Amino acid sequence: MRVLETVGGPADLKKLTDQQLADLAAEIRDVLVETVSRTGGHLGPNLGMVEITLAMHRVFDSPRDRLVFDTGHQTYVHKLLTGRAGQFDSLRQQGGLSGYPSQAESEHDLVENSHASTALSYADGLAKAYRLRKEDRYVVALIGDGGLTGGMAWEALNNIAAAKDLKLVIIVNDNGRSYSPTVGGLATHLTSLRTNPRYEKILDLIKKNLGRTPYVGPPMYEVLHGVKKGLKDMLAPQGMFEDLGLKYVGPVDGHDRQALEDALRNAKSFGGPVIVHAVTQKGFGYPAAEQDEEDNFHQIRPANKPRGWTDVFSDELVKIGHRRPDVVAITAAMLHPTGLAAFADEFPDRTFDVGIAEQHAVTSAAGLAMGGMHPVVGLYATFLNRAFDQLLLDVALHKCGVTFVLDRAGVTGDDGASHNGMWDMSILQVVPGLRLAAPRDGKRVQELLNEAVEVDDAPTVLRFAKGEVFEDIEAVDRIGQLDVLKRPASDAAKDVLLVGIGSMAATAMDVAQRLEAHGFGVTVVDPRWVKPVDPKLVELAADFTLVVTIEDNGRAGGCGTMIAQALRDAGVRTPLRDFGIPQQFLEHAKRAAVLQEIGLTGQEVAREITEQLTRHDSDALNQPDPAGDRPST
Amino acid sequence: MRVLETVGGPADLKKLTDQQLADLAAEIRDVLVETVSRTGGHLGPNLGMVEITLAMHRVFDSPRDRLVFDTGHQTYVHKLLTGRAGQFDSLRQQGGLSGYPSQAESEHDLVENSHASTALSYADGLAKAYRLRKEDRYVVALIGDGGLTGGMAWEALNNIAAAKDLKLVIIVNDNGRSYSPTVGGLATHLTSLRTNPRYEKILDLIKKNLGRTPYVGPPMYEVLHGVKKGLKDMLAPQGMFEDLGLKYVGPVDGHDRQALEDALRNAKSFGGPVIVHAVTQKGFGYPAAEQDEEDNFHQIRPANKPRGWTDVFSDELVKIGHRRPDVVAITAAMLHPTGLAAFADEFPDRTFDVGIAEQHAVTSAAGLAMGGMHPVVGLYATFLNRAFDQLLLDVALHKCGVTFVLDRAGVTGDDGASHNGMWDMSILQVVPGLRLAAPRDGKRVQELLNEAVEVDDAPTVLRFAKGEVFEDIEAVDRIGQLDVLKRPASDAAKDVLLVGIGSMAATAMDVAQRLEAHGFGVTVVDPRWVKPVDPKLVELAADFTLVVTIEDNGRAGGCGTMIAQALRDAGVRTPLRDFGIPQQFLEHAKRAAVLQEIGLTGQEVAREITEQLTRHDSDALNQPDPAGDRPST
Repeated sequence: MRVLETVGGPADLKKLTDQQLADLAAEIRDVLVETVSRTGGHLGPNLGMVEITLAMHRVFDSPRDRLVFDTGHQTYVHKLLTGRAGQFDSLRQQGGLSGYPSQAESEHDLVENSHASTALSYADGLAKAYRLRKEDRYVVALIGDGGLTGGMAWEALNNIAAAKDLKLVIIVNDNGRSYSPTVGGLATHLTSLRTNPRYEKILDLIKKNLGRTPYVGPPMYEVLHGVKKGLKDMLAPQGMFEDLGLKYVGPVDGHDRQALEDALRNAKSFGGPVIVHAVTQKGFGYPAAEQDEEDNFHQIRPANKPRGWTDVFSDELVKIGHRRPDVVAITAAMLHPTGLAAFADEFPDRTFDVGIAEQHAVTSAAGLAMGGMHPVVGLYATFLNRAFDQLLLDVALHKCGVTFVLDRAGVTGDDGASHNGMWDMSILQVVPGLRLAAPRDGKRVQELLNEAVEVDDAPTVLRFAKGEVFEDIEAVDRIGQLDVLKRPASDAAKDVLLVGIGSMAATAMDVAQRLEAHGFGVTVVDPRWVKPVDPKLVELAADFTLVVTIEDNGRAGGCGTMIAQALRDAGVRTPLRDFGIPQQFLEHAKRAAVLQEIGLTGQEVAREITEQLTRHDSDALNQPDPAGDRPST
Repeated sequence: MRVLETVGGPADLKKLTDQQLADLAAEIRDVLVETVSRTGGHLGPNLGMVEITLAMHRVFDSPRDRLVFDTGHQTYVHKLLTGRAGQFDSLRQQGGLSGYPSQAESEHDLVENSHASTALSYADGLAKAYRLRKEDRYVVALIGDGGLTGGMAWEALNNIAAAKDLKLVIIVNDNGRSYSPTVGGLATHLTSLRTNPRYEKILDLIKKNLGRTPYVGPPMYEVLHGVKKGLKDMLAPQGMFEDLGLKYVGPVDGHDRQALEDALRNAKSFGGPVIVHAVTQKGFGYPAAEQDEEDNFHQIRPANKPRGWTDVFSDELVKIGHRRPDVVAITAAMLHPTGLAAFADEFPDRTFDVGIAEQHAVTSAAGLAMGGMHPVVGLYATFLNRAFDQLLLDVALHKCGVTFVLDRAGVTGDDGASHNGMWDMSILQVVPGLRLAAPRDGKRVQELLNEAVEVDDAPTVLRFAKGEVFEDIEAVDRIGQLDVLKRPASDAAKDVLLVGIGSMAATAMDVAQRLEAHGFGVTVVDPRWVKPVDPKLVELAADFTLVVTIEDNGRAGGCGTMIAQALRDAGVRTPLRDFGIPQQFLEHAKRAAVLQEIGLTGQEVAREITEQLTRHDSDALNQPDPAGDRPST
């Protein structure tokens, strides 16, 4: 029997021998490689987390002590050790285990959010709460060197340093290349710590004071008493963390479980916030991942990846880069996933990877624009939320020509609630002057990107979906900025004006076909630029019985809402029906399954419209509606 | 003649003698105290900036070299030295000088945004643009010690440290108490630098190598050559900045103009990013401001301040604090302005001032809630934008009971575009589960705050205006969550349902009176909780001829939009007219003047509604509308 099968929860770990623990680590690595190769997911980060996770669970007592993982994609090992090994093959599958922590799955999970750099702030709050409530519980925050480049982490460190008596242990999982090779001053500093000769000295001290397998027998008091002298040296503050007044232990070999446990026990016994600096190797134990320079094992995707939205953007930007020497690219630690790597290869001087630092990415883009360049900022749609204030007041207020390219917009599916890009088209509506485009296919990605980089006095945004790019849908006409994708057989049949936004243009075409089968006259348009609302769209809408908008974005404040407002403002009374994502956090599943679940499919939209139009035929859609209290839209 | 009158621009400064410069500094302080006492504005920060600003303009060549000021409220001296002394008495008045930099005012102004911690990111972008364009221009960023506590500043420092050849000088204006006494590890570290014995040594070095009045004669090459040896010592990196790989000069006495100039010239000649650490005294040269512990001179407000919205909240929270030991308060360096100081006095252990760090404030609140407390986070409405992602994914996704109290919501006026709180009610609409209340008067602040802190499974938000609290308007009825504020004389007269949101409830009452004078039957309701939309409001709306919403928030995605969507979803066809702030950046002026300008007054709203209803009487509001293409709302 494998050791893993004997581990029903963290308590079982504490009974294992060193040999069993070593066997367990190997078993876990096998399971990770085997499962993730099949289900997709984050492989490299989790291979690097095996010993750290074992040590965390052996030294601390979850869920009484709380473990907070930054960027939850490094919790697979934690899942395997907290009673979920049996379900692990359902990872990221609908109804199966989430690729992130999940409170619904386990009492050992707390923070579900996958955005980076948050763990220290949660931990600060948790530890302060326990202190106020006089609960004797530890909080352990695990953050990567990449996560530390995010401004939030700095804000948290600055506060934690001032709170001397918090029961808070911070583990820095330093693999030296979170996401991409980590840039900046912090990376240099961590490197200098890593290569510090004190490393060996500290290890010696730990061994001398504690032996290799302490704490199994003696009660805590004795341990504390016994190691006080050693501790003092070991916890001597160091480098940047010292300057902030934080205690520092390390660096520790992040694949030496025993060394990690010793360091964590010492940190635990200190009684105040301590940083434990663990040096790990991403992909450890799986040579293909260890040696992969391009970090392809960070996240495993299905083989034979078809040409995606990202690829189309990537190629087009390189072309633009050749034509326009003022175009520069900015990414926040996502050079490959956002498709900027090709541009970086061609124009290394004109590419800036700022680390996990969306706020800085956006405001430095404003600075670049003020200096005469045209920046293209590549982000996942969901991460733009991090820099909303900067986009509004730094870019838009100053009328800077900056183009934002939002990848993974709309329903992304597998990665769960916090990765869906369902917020951008709502919050961007409030930004004065901003122009927002939602390309419906690859050709439109090219076309709209070229239009966007021509705008030099306002922010422009392109947003497109995750995955395989859609087949081109050619327009039959252009009215204002609108592409007319389909006209009814008879010009007189103006039952429905379907407004398909971005990837939902294809859905709108599907809906149109279904409605025509029921005898309705349908026109389909793609606004291309969804903000501002084109006056031509408002004019057009006036002629129809019903306007239907379909968008891959939250319904609250989305494009449908704005088109409805434009109709109101113009006095156009055509009823409008706005389809979009219900305003709720979505469970993880494949994109298609999620769209099915929320009714954002051609079949469901057509069904609802047909029902409404049929009801109206026998009712009041084009009839007097004196009381205004009868259902109509 | 005063020296100030001879200064038409920065070039004139370079001709002045030491004595004239000393006289000029004194004159500037007189003008600051005299003007700001009358117009209101930021006094303390600007008194502390006199010598720094003089030195910046003498060493660098604006606008060729670009000066970027963090939190633009410290640019009054800059305005006086760049040709605007003659208009300075119009400071913060409508049509007069802005209290912040303004590109429209001067070619010497660049960054208009007043939110903190952005300057280093702009500067990074600008310097990179000049490097790419091979333009020989310097970028000088001025940031306070408070601004450095913001995460953005860390992100920028981390990137700047990696860009060795940028012509970028960072001046840290360290008065040790930006806004409130600065908290955290950084403050401690700056203090340790300030009291470092190297200070004297550096001053000596500067004097020895450069003399007291260098650079007037010799060309740059010689200077560079001559000081190389001294520079090497002087620019030896130090402390935290060293760890990041940044060159550091300082600390320098920020009120010794000559010492500052020497330091800046040295930094300039270095050829890469350098931090110049200037130690200043807030309010310097004005004893009342220097000695003021409570920082009342940070921003001067009119005397005899009447009881404000903030005061009502402040008192009520203390009461709640006595009753509810789990309630804790969090502020981001705004303890006094957000009214949390009284709570802090009463419950110091339960109050956390995190510095200028909105992101950390919000996520640590999530942690506190997870740990069993109920945090109340006090922020200016406009600053919540900084933590939108954290509110959405850290608080709401985890169903944390955190109450956000947004002060200065709506039109704030004097402080210009970036201080208006006109975004919150739109962007918050997308947050699943969040409940949003807009109290119309003091009594409702008390009532809704008490309701909000009872919600333990979702974020709650209270937002209220700046300034004097409105007179209580008592309800005549309660339907669901709605307060009915006014009913028509005859129950049958259901012409208009006026929905007055927050401070606009008073405006709605005014509108109602005017409409009744024209013979219309008007009902006024205050939804109290504007998110989610109360189904009772939808039901009620069905009975009326016209629904009118009035809100002190941007129209795009605002409450009116959401009520309109709720009506659509329920099939209620009553036309809706949504009044709010047009989606644009507003010029600075008094709140009342801005509201007048944008038509958000009782008179204007009543006029537009009357016009519409009158048109409809003779037209089609209650008549068949077969084509749906006639103006109606």
